Amino acid sequence: MSAAVRVPGPRPGLRAVALGGGHGLYNTLTALRYLTDDVTAVVTVADDGGSSGRLRHELGRIPPGDLRMALAALMSAPAAVDALRAHDPAAADRRIRWAEILQHRLGGSGALAGHPVGNLLLSGVDEYHDDLVTALDELVQLFGVEGRVLPMSTEPLVIEADVTGLEEDPRMSRVIRGQVAVATTPGVVRRVRLTPEAPAACPEALAAVAAADLVTLGPGSWFSSVIPHVLVPEQLEALRSTSARKVLFVNLVAEPGETTGFSLERHLHVLNAHAGSLPIDDIIVDAASVPAGREREHLDRAARLFGAQLRTVDLRHATHTDIHDPIKSAIALDGFLGPTTQI
Amino acid sequence: MSAAVRVPGPRPGLRAVALGGGHGLYNTLTALRYLTDDVTAVVTVADDGGSSGRLRHELGRIPPGDLRMALAALMSAPAAVDALRAHDPAAADRRIRWAEILQHRLGGSGALAGHPVGNLLLSGVDEYHDDLVTALDELVQLFGVEGRVLPMSTEPLVIEADVTGLEEDPRMSRVIRGQVAVATTPGVVRRVRLTPEAPAACPEALAAVAAADLVTLGPGSWFSSVIPHVLVPEQLEALRSTSARKVLFVNLVAEPGETTGFSLERHLHVLNAHAGSLPIDDIIVDAASVPAGREREHLDRAARLFGAQLRTVDLRHATHTDIHDPIKSAIALDGFLGPTTQI
Repeated sequence: MSAAVRVPGPRPGLRAVALGGGHGLYNTLTALRYLTDDVTAVVTVADDGGSSGRLRHELGRIPPGDLRMALAALMSAPAAVDALRAHDPAAADRRIRWAEILQHRLGGSGALAGHPVGNLLLSGVDEYHDDLVTALDELVQLFGVEGRVLPMSTEPLVIEADVTGLEEDPRMSRVIRGQVAVATTPGVVRRVRLTPEAPAACPEALAAVAAADLVTLGPGSWFSSVIPHVLVPEQLEALRSTSARKVLFVNLVAEPGETTGFSLERHLHVLNAHAGSLPIDDIIVDAASVPAGREREHLDRAARLFGAQLRTVDLRHATHTDIHDPIKSAIALDGFLGPTTQI
Repeated sequence: MSAAVRVPGPRPGLRAVALGGGHGLYNTLTALRYLTDDVTAVVTVADDGGSSGRLRHELGRIPPGDLRMALAALMSAPAAVDALRAHDPAAADRRIRWAEILQHRLGGSGALAGHPVGNLLLSGVDEYHDDLVTALDELVQLFGVEGRVLPMSTEPLVIEADVTGLEEDPRMSRVIRGQVAVATTPGVVRRVRLTPEAPAACPEALAAVAAADLVTLGPGSWFSSVIPHVLVPEQLEALRSTSARKVLFVNLVAEPGETTGFSLERHLHVLNAHAGSLPIDDIIVDAASVPAGREREHLDRAARLFGAQLRTVDLRHATHTDIHDPIKSAIALDGFLGPTTQI
């Protein structure tokens, strides 16, 4: 980070909840951690690929990958590490190491190759406790992490999508099952569903949303990490009824597969189509991605579907321009919250 | 444990080192922990069976199983947990849970089935650091364990045995390779070797032996957990030159396979045959196993090969009569050390 950037300081007492999954959630958690140490991650649990898919299949439990990444994000967030370093430098180093260890993927060419250490650990603790929330709290406590990591649902979920463009007749729709299949389909995803259709929410996540001052959704794989959060009925209801400020981060770029060719506006329309009426306060889009003229009007109109104010902000990471810069995201959130929302 | 048993109290400053492997070492560590919180486990690393064998084969690193068990022993030793409970009951409960989690074997019927969580964790941390001692210290620190767990050698070892009784001619000897094969051979083990033949010792283990006040060897699988410790040349030399009191625990019962039909005397003879001159202060045998008359004389003579005093003590666990009761072992050690060896 550049020394010239003013990193926002903490807002004591601010309770933040971040909904999402994967790398998008990782970045949002890193951003929120600048504003408060009371950050709860609520994580999608529909992954069926890679290490998570293998573990899910073998152990019949919730796929651990996105949960592990969220834990690693809270452990290694610069704001968290710097605060720790101020009074215990060795503990700060240890925490960075452990975040790296959890993310480290085993080598070799055997049955364990490719599994991140944290996936194996979380799976083991989950199986031991036979309760995922207890297992996550156990790891949070072991590593001395502030905040909390929770699953979106207490059951492993399957994503199913209606996809067009796979048949000769472009209007023909096919059902594609599984997160990996949906994320990589060459067709156009029209709608996603979860199986089971109305999964049980995680009670602790509902309580966190209800008690929050700030709730973020996205960025992330739109159909497989972001939209699933509004497909859990109790969680959607909690989002509607919370008094928290609700902020939506729209992706910087369309993702090959899931959202090939999607405009910002279309991201909003598909979310709205899945969420029904969901009030959002701020929709944050990257300044450089915002169209001009008539398209800009369409985008404003799409934001109004949520009753949201469209915020155009420079969010791009200086070197990895397809991902959000957590410091820029933190500065943006800090600005919207303003002095009066400080508690 | 019976309330009537007087559990020995700690001897401040006593530095103890326990050499061994498997369940035998687990019990000795539990016993030593009554006497001091400065306990170093030095662990055999020749296992090639079960989870350890699979991990060793897949990852090309040291088999983690015996190291994990030693760590769990130091974590869950009643003396350690009780001391912690006195000032932090929640931490004591947490530590017991984590010892159980490390020992918990994953279920399912896939590639991970049967792996103890601690084996996967240690393997991952070892691979991350690319240094086993650093990895073990990392875990000791994470779990707040007093003491230390070290490998006998910094390289994975293979046990090779000369075994008779496998051919029609009873004098014919065959070479059997691998810990599992040696431990389960229906023949009679005559001699074991390590491959590589003169493996590098662990420098930290050598330093611990040199600085110790008390070093224990055994009980445990005689050929695969106990004798290997004297087959690492530098470690044997460290045992010869340390001023620590050296105590050998002989097994309560002969083990099917490795030592079928072995008398106590024969246990001592085979150790002596492998160790050459190794001074030992006390050889502890279970009172109920000690023969009478002429056989007792032979046993005394075998003890004199080490310059040792033969100590006959009731060591059997009240309900599991084939294993040592750690409290009885601790009481025995406490008695031999006497008031003057307290530092």
